[in-house]
Amino acid sequence: MLRTNTCGELRKKDCGKEVTLCGWVQRTRDLGGMTFIDIRDRYGITQLTFSVELNKELYQKAKTIGREYVIKASGTVVERSNKNPKKPTGDIEVIANAMEIINPSDTVPFTIEDETDGGEELRMKYRYLDIRRDMVKKNLLLRHKMAFETRNFLNQLDFIEVETPVLIKSTPEGARDFLVPSRINPGHFYALPQSPQTFKQLLMVGGLDKYFQLVKCFRDEDFRADRQPEFTQIDCEMSYVTKKDIFEVFEGLIRQLFVKFKNIKVGSFTRLSYHDAIKYYGTDKPDIRFEMKIVDISEIAKGQGFKVFDDAEIVAGIRVPGCAGYTRKQIDELTEWVKRPQIGAKGLVYVKVNNDGTIKSSVDKFYGEKELIKWVNGFGAHNDDLLLIMAGGKNSTLKALGELRLEMGNRLGLRDPNTFKCLWVEDFPLLEWDEETQRYYAMHHPFTSPLEEDLDKLDKDPANVRANAYDMVINGVEVGGGSIRIHDKNMQSKMFDVLSISKDEAEKQFGFLMDAFRFGAPPHGGIAFGFDRMVALFAGTDSIRDVIAFPKNNAGRDIMIDSPATIDEKQLKDLHLKLDIKK
Amino acid sequence: MLRTNTCGELRKKDCGKEVTLCGWVQRTRDLGGMTFIDIRDRYGITQLTFSVELNKELYQKAKTIGREYVIKASGTVVERSNKNPKKPTGDIEVIANAMEIINPSDTVPFTIEDETDGGEELRMKYRYLDIRRDMVKKNLLLRHKMAFETRNFLNQLDFIEVETPVLIKSTPEGARDFLVPSRINPGHFYALPQSPQTFKQLLMVGGLDKYFQLVKCFRDEDFRADRQPEFTQIDCEMSYVTKKDIFEVFEGLIRQLFVKFKNIKVGSFTRLSYHDAIKYYGTDKPDIRFEMKIVDISEIAKGQGFKVFDDAEIVAGIRVPGCAGYTRKQIDELTEWVKRPQIGAKGLVYVKVNNDGTIKSSVDKFYGEKELIKWVNGFGAHNDDLLLIMAGGKNSTLKALGELRLEMGNRLGLRDPNTFKCLWVEDFPLLEWDEETQRYYAMHHPFTSPLEEDLDKLDKDPANVRANAYDMVINGVEVGGGSIRIHDKNMQSKMFDVLSISKDEAEKQFGFLMDAFRFGAPPHGGIAFGFDRMVALFAGTDSIRDVIAFPKNNAGRDIMIDSPATIDEKQLKDLHLKLDIKK
Repeated sequence: MLRTNTCGELRKKDCGKEVTLCGWVQRTRDLGGMTFIDIRDRYGITQLTFSVELNKELYQKAKTIGREYVIKASGTVVERSNKNPKKPTGDIEVIANAMEIINPSDTVPFTIEDETDGGEELRMKYRYLDIRRDMVKKNLLLRHKMAFETRNFLNQLDFIEVETPVLIKSTPEGARDFLVPSRINPGHFYALPQSPQTFKQLLMVGGLDKYFQLVKCFRDEDFRADRQPEFTQIDCEMSYVTKKDIFEVFEGLIRQLFVKFKNIKVGSFTRLSYHDAIKYYGTDKPDIRFEMKIVDISEIAKGQGFKVFDDAEIVAGIRVPGCAGYTRKQIDELTEWVKRPQIGAKGLVYVKVNNDGTIKSSVDKFYGEKELIKWVNGFGAHNDDLLLIMAGGKNSTLKALGELRLEMGNRLGLRDPNTFKCLWVEDFPLLEWDEETQRYYAMHHPFTSPLEEDLDKLDKDPANVRANAYDMVINGVEVGGGSIRIHDKNMQSKMFDVLSISKDEAEKQFGFLMDAFRFGAPPHGGIAFGFDRMVALFAGTDSIRDVIAFPKNNAGRDIMIDSPATIDEKQLKDLHLKLDIKK
Repeated sequence: MLRTNTCGELRKKDCGKEVTLCGWVQRTRDLGGMTFIDIRDRYGITQLTFSVELNKELYQKAKTIGREYVIKASGTVVERSNKNPKKPTGDIEVIANAMEIINPSDTVPFTIEDETDGGEELRMKYRYLDIRRDMVKKNLLLRHKMAFETRNFLNQLDFIEVETPVLIKSTPEGARDFLVPSRINPGHFYALPQSPQTFKQLLMVGGLDKYFQLVKCFRDEDFRADRQPEFTQIDCEMSYVTKKDIFEVFEGLIRQLFVKFKNIKVGSFTRLSYHDAIKYYGTDKPDIRFEMKIVDISEIAKGQGFKVFDDAEIVAGIRVPGCAGYTRKQIDELTEWVKRPQIGAKGLVYVKVNNDGTIKSSVDKFYGEKELIKWVNGFGAHNDDLLLIMAGGKNSTLKALGELRLEMGNRLGLRDPNTFKCLWVEDFPLLEWDEETQRYYAMHHPFTSPLEEDLDKLDKDPANVRANAYDMVINGVEVGGGSIRIHDKNMQSKMFDVLSISKDEAEKQFGFLMDAFRFGAPPHGGIAFGFDRMVALFAGTDSIRDVIAFPKNNAGRDIMIDSPATIDEKQLKDLHLKLDIKK
């Protein structure tokens, strides 16, 4: 190594040692006759001291170097007179007796500090400089450690990590695939996997019993905020299991990660049906760090002559504790907030339960005190509570209330970033009806098994068949999801029927899986975690871009390497393709 | 779990226990009144016993089930009277009192046994059945464990695993890229990485200090035997290092893997220059488990009037110990062997040093005994040795002799599959001249640094500049390769000049790297191991397909899922592409 030590390891016990450090210049200070250089590497920062008295030439040289120069400096470790207790190396400094500029640096486009002056666009273009910042570096290190710990945990439980192929086949079912033209097979294409779903099922048919993989997956979506065209999953599958076994193993994994990386023992995992999640939280990924459940008051609020409520499919609301004091202005502002297109509510009705027990509401005109007291009781409201009520279509109203609930949770500080509440949402609907194509789609994917007790509805009432599927939700973030799979060829075939996938199409797309089910497929099930999101959750950031080394922007571009890009005419020809672009 | 135990764990100490096992029927035997079923899972095989006396109905049911049925059976563990010492579970059997057929199986296309009756094509089509075979399963398990151990080793040395992007940009330099059309950016393409080379260098510029990744890489080659379009690398990079540091760390890794998985302490790593590798072994990846070095006898053999030798650029051969007794027929057969197009030699001259010290040669007509004794001495040959000599162009002759050397090593049993000799080949040429395009290409890649002592030749004698590059070779298999990289922007720019890459082109393709070098790039270097090949070496197989879960065939097709395949017209349209296929 060009160095004897890293910039993060020297301590008081090292005083007297002759050392050589390599790293980047964090900053230099000249105090007249003394120049101090903070030299930085991945492991820390150490102070180098250059004194005009000890070595004039070296002192002069030290004065010429700028931020982010790469230098190699040798000297003696000594105890500092003015120690810096904030730095692990703050007790010592290195009195330099030699220094070499390994590589100078132009002025960097933004400063390499926690509070940087660089905007996101600039930082992404120079991501290699952004990575020098402590925050980004720490996130990448956390990601590495979480991956390592995950592998460790699963390996100990006899899971085998198996690499499944990246060049696979396109399946029109589900989201859009990225495609890869084959040069050797003109007119043929590979596809990049959206997940290794069928392969991991085949590994179960192959008898591997317990599989996992940290694996890149790909989805050609119209980009939205914080989606990446390539993302990483912790993909898992087990044979001879029920949902209970899956829950046990993966609660264990999540518990271990929390202990290891947050020093937190998470409590028991709550379980909630999809039905109740929607009913009480207006979302299938509720944040259960706080209550404030949605209350349906349709029965007591409708039929009293208030047309808005009478015409509504549902009247429901939330009880916001301690907020009866909200001013007119605050209520107006909340009303504007729910009317934004992202929330899409038509309006907001309030009921204040004042401290003296009186009730004040925006619908006083339509409801007398006696009526309103029924509402107050319906919500279980106390003095000083504020009820916020919406009405309209069931789905949209519950969704909007779910959003309002989160917003009020934020405003009241009920969503403590250092508290983690884990939740399984289960019993999802098996199917979703699509109006446009007039057919059912699998809510999860076509390999998810229906709940046994709902099997009899598969023919006559498919919309109400529940799936043996589950999501893991932490603090309102869906970190993973999975299901017990179909392992019976007749059931799989039936499922394709329900999904209006013809026998021919099923054979063409999934023939290999149907084949596999003919030769002794074991019962199996699994789960896949969104690793990027999980790391972001642990890192305490909202953006998965913060935990990806080289992320793409919301338009799917890597602005650092400037990709995607045009290619040579010859490359196109080799692939037997022509561009077909409307000017 | 549907089971209480796996099929591999019950022992004598478990006798008396009530257990439930799940697995596949390996075989059934009916001994009249007693039916034995061997039930198999990933962990082993256990014998189930069904007795007509104990339960007639169950006994009848057991007789109906066939190979590869998935069953669940419960019963009591008892000690066997006729123990099977070959099986870990051979001391016990399970007297069944219940059995359920979970999933029946059609007759499998080949038997699930070590010695299977299935050819490769068939086994690949039903790879999920092939994986049930012990051999394939063991290879996948070994692969998992080797990956796990590699991560463990590198993690302990502070390496960080960082995921680099899969959707990157095409670089015409080097092998052919797989391309991925971008739907959202019409006419633009991503490329799949042939290696994360530039990204790992940027991580060093970003200060991550020690990086590794087990990563899928992609190369769109014209397929040859045992190449896969997607393959896995152990990709590594370190900052502030010299070649010595790289050698130390990665010899350590390889040593640890050998201890762990082969229980072998490999000796010291030999070091050999590229020049000497070619000179003595006719290849840059010599198998040094045995000597039999190539000896150049041009000086003593030429100019004696034998035109074949006189016209040759080189006359050289190998000394095959103890083979002077080879018959005419054997020599003829060897001559045919070297004349095959794969070897491409024109002929083979032999000299036998008989046991009585007399010499017999195929060129007796041209060389007297006195001359031949000079040869014998040149080779350091003893009685009973056979000299095999070729002549011709230097490169082709050395190459052919290298092949012949390996063949003789095989025939003499000198290539013991349980002996492992590790070697670094170093000082590769920096550049290769290409006659067709009349320019130099980087032998390694354009980011490899020249040896400092050869820098002065870069302008006037580029062909003779050596690179600071190295390969790790074990038993004739190139398992890894790397280099100390260029970290100076002027040197990188110079390198592009030498490679006749224009300033514009360099900027377009590698502008981000050139940019990065402006902001304090540290000295760095690394290595990448071909993980598939490494696992194959440890598994003792010649084919990397044996250690890949779902390999493609030599035409790049996955015959199980039938990929690549045609796609919908709509998918093509979405990508702004038209097929351009000559009928």
